[in-house]
Amino acid sequence: MIYFDNAATTRASQEVAEKMTEMLCHNFGNPASINKLGLQVEKEIRKATEILSRGIHCKPTEIFYTSGGTEGDNWAIFGTAEGYRGRHLITTKIEHPAVKKPMEALQQKGYDVTFLPVDKKGKIDLQQLQDAIREDTILVSIILVNNETGVIQDAEKIGKLVKQKNPHTLFHVDAVQAFGKYPIDVEKMKIDLLTMSGHKINGPKGVGMLYKREGVKTKPYILGGGQQQGQRSGTENGAGVAGLGVAADICFQNMKKNQETVLEIKKTLTEGILEMDNVQINGDSLQEGSPYVLNVTFKGVRSEVLLHSLESKDIFVSAGSACDSKKKVGSPVLTAMGLPFEEIEGAVRFSFCQYNTVEEAKECFKQLKEIVPLLRKYNR
Amino acid sequence: MIYFDNAATTRASQEVAEKMTEMLCHNFGNPASINKLGLQVEKEIRKATEILSRGIHCKPTEIFYTSGGTEGDNWAIFGTAEGYRGRHLITTKIEHPAVKKPMEALQQKGYDVTFLPVDKKGKIDLQQLQDAIREDTILVSIILVNNETGVIQDAEKIGKLVKQKNPHTLFHVDAVQAFGKYPIDVEKMKIDLLTMSGHKINGPKGVGMLYKREGVKTKPYILGGGQQQGQRSGTENGAGVAGLGVAADICFQNMKKNQETVLEIKKTLTEGILEMDNVQINGDSLQEGSPYVLNVTFKGVRSEVLLHSLESKDIFVSAGSACDSKKKVGSPVLTAMGLPFEEIEGAVRFSFCQYNTVEEAKECFKQLKEIVPLLRKYNR
Repeated sequence: MIYFDNAATTRASQEVAEKMTEMLCHNFGNPASINKLGLQVEKEIRKATEILSRGIHCKPTEIFYTSGGTEGDNWAIFGTAEGYRGRHLITTKIEHPAVKKPMEALQQKGYDVTFLPVDKKGKIDLQQLQDAIREDTILVSIILVNNETGVIQDAEKIGKLVKQKNPHTLFHVDAVQAFGKYPIDVEKMKIDLLTMSGHKINGPKGVGMLYKREGVKTKPYILGGGQQQGQRSGTENGAGVAGLGVAADICFQNMKKNQETVLEIKKTLTEGILEMDNVQINGDSLQEGSPYVLNVTFKGVRSEVLLHSLESKDIFVSAGSACDSKKKVGSPVLTAMGLPFEEIEGAVRFSFCQYNTVEEAKECFKQLKEIVPLLRKYNR
Repeated sequence: MIYFDNAATTRASQEVAEKMTEMLCHNFGNPASINKLGLQVEKEIRKATEILSRGIHCKPTEIFYTSGGTEGDNWAIFGTAEGYRGRHLITTKIEHPAVKKPMEALQQKGYDVTFLPVDKKGKIDLQQLQDAIREDTILVSIILVNNETGVIQDAEKIGKLVKQKNPHTLFHVDAVQAFGKYPIDVEKMKIDLLTMSGHKINGPKGVGMLYKREGVKTKPYILGGGQQQGQRSGTENGAGVAGLGVAADICFQNMKKNQETVLEIKKTLTEGILEMDNVQINGDSLQEGSPYVLNVTFKGVRSEVLLHSLESKDIFVSAGSACDSKKKVGSPVLTAMGLPFEEIEGAVRFSFCQYNTVEEAKECFKQLKEIVPLLRKYNR
C-alpha cells in the first residue's frame, strides 16, 4: 500500500501504540486522584507537556489537552468571543471547517467576521489584514499550513502586524497541518492561541492540544471537574496524551530530516507529474510551500474517478479535505484561490509523512502516467 | 494491588487494548475519506454503535461519540439551552460537576435553574420534581447512579412524570456510573439525552457517547467538518470508539453476572465494616443502591489519612469524587444528603468492577480493622 493521504490522517507509530497500551492496561489511574496511581499518570502527562511546550517555545502551563483539532479551534474562537468584549473577528477564506463553522456561528449571533481573500497561490495579503484590524477586533485566526494546498502563511509577519495595529487583538493559529512539521515559535510569531491534533503526526486520534498564552482570558469551553487548571474539564486522557507526547517527540527530534525526506518525495512526484500533459500544480512553489502536501490538477479528469483508480492499485490519495469529501462541493480553498471549476474538479491532494519513500513516489507517478490518459480518453 | 476506585476510573480490559492497537496501527483510516481505509473504520464504528444502541434500546442513528462524560453533559445542557426557547432547567444537588458547572454557567447568563434537594439516602422527591416543572422548563437533568454514593434515581418514574407534566421538556440522564452496569431502556424511561463515558467501564479514556433521541433539537456543541450527521464534528476517534464498543459489549453480555459479582464484594465488605464501631453506611441500602459503589463514614477518622494508610497497603479507594479530590471541600453530595461535616470528613468511597474479587474485599476489611482504630487513637 502507498499511503499518500497523511493530511487526512496518519497511521500511529509503533512507539505511540506501545505507550498507549502501557497506559491503558497498567498506568491507568485518574490524575485527579490523590494517590500514587494518579501521580504516575500525571508524571506521564507532564513528560508529554514538556515535549510539546519545548517544541513551540511556550511554558508547560500554557499547554491544554483537547479531544483534537476541531475542539481546539472551537475553544479558541468561542472562548475568545465569550472572554472578550469586542464584536469583530478576522480569518481567511481558506480555513478548515473547524474554524469556518464557529466563525459563521458567531456571525449568526451578531458578530462581525472578516474573511480575508487569498491570492492565486493561496496567501493572504498583509496590507489587507492590517486594514481589516479594528479597535474592536478580538481575534485574528489564521491557518498556518493549509490542509489542501500546503501553502504557508507568514506567521511571524502576521503576529507582528496584529500586535502593532492592535495589541489587544489575540492571534490564533490553526497549526493542525504545521505542528511538528514546520518550526513554530509562539514568542517570535506572537501567537496567543495555537491548535494542534495528534492524528496528523502519527499520533492517536481523539487527542490534541490548545496552547493558550498566560494571561489570555479565553474562557473554558468544556466545564466540569476543573481539570487542567480549570481550563478544560474532563478526566485527562492519559493514554492519548502520552501517545501524543511520543508522536510529538519523534517529530521534533527529526524535523529537519523528515522535512528533507518528504521534500525529496514531493520533488520526485512533482517532477514526474510535470512530465505529463495538462497538469497544474496548485499552491505555492516547491521551495515555499509545505513539503508535506502536493496539490495537482489533472485537467480533463474528475478527481474522484482518479483517486478510485489509484485505490485499485493500492495507492491512497484524496481530493481536497477529508472533512469536505462527502459533500460534493468544489473545494472552498481552491475556489478562494480563483481556480475555475474545471481545475478544481480535477484536483488531487498527495500528502506525505516521514514513513513514505521516494520509491513510493516513483511507483505512484508510474501509475498516474498510465491511468490519467486512460481516464481522459473515457471522459471525452 | 487491590483497586477499589473504579468509579474514578478503570483499567482498560485486555480486549479493549488489543482492539485499539489494531485500530491505531492497521485500521487507521479517516472515516470521512471516501476510500476503503475510511470504510473499514466506519465499519468498526458501526459495530460499536450497534452494541451501544442495542444496550440502551435506541436506534444506531441516535448515538453520537464524544470525548467523554464531561463533553456529553456540556453538550446536552448547553446544546438544549441553545436549541430551545425556554429559560428554565431542573437538576439536582447531587450532580457531577460536569452537569453542575454548565448549569451554573447558564444561571449566570440569566437562565433559571432549579437544584432539587435530596433526602438522607440521596434520592430526589418526585412530588418536588413535578412541582418544579413549568411551561418554560426545557430540560430535566438527573444523575442516574450517583458517583459518590451509588444511589439510583428512578428514571422510569421520572421520565413518565416529566412527559406528563410537560411533553416539551427534555429528559437528560447522566449515566456515566450507570451505563453497562444498570439496565437502561431509553424508551421505557422516556430519556431524550443520555451521557456515558468509556473509562468507567474498563474502556478507553477520552471517548464517550451522547444518545440523542431522533427529533430532539439540541444544537451541536463542536462545529466543523460535519462528521456524525453534522452533530459532532472532528475526525472520528476510530480506536477509541472501537475500544468503547468492545468494553460495552463485555458489560452488556455479562451485566447480570457482573452485578452479582460486585454485589457479593460489596456485601462482604459492608458486613465486615459493620462489625466495626462507629461506622455508618452512606446512601441507599444494599438492595436498593448500586452494587458498584459503597460509601462509608469511619467516624473520628479523616478520610484522606485513611486512604493514604490503605494505599501503603496497596489498597486504592477514594474520598468522594476524584474530580473534587483536590479541592479540599466537603463532598457536596453528602452535604446535600444532610450529613454533618464530621460524618463527611470520615467518608470513604469503595467502588468495584467485575474484575474485583471477594478475597480482595476480605483483605481490605482486614486492613481496615487494623488501621482505623490506630488512626482514631492518633486523632484523639
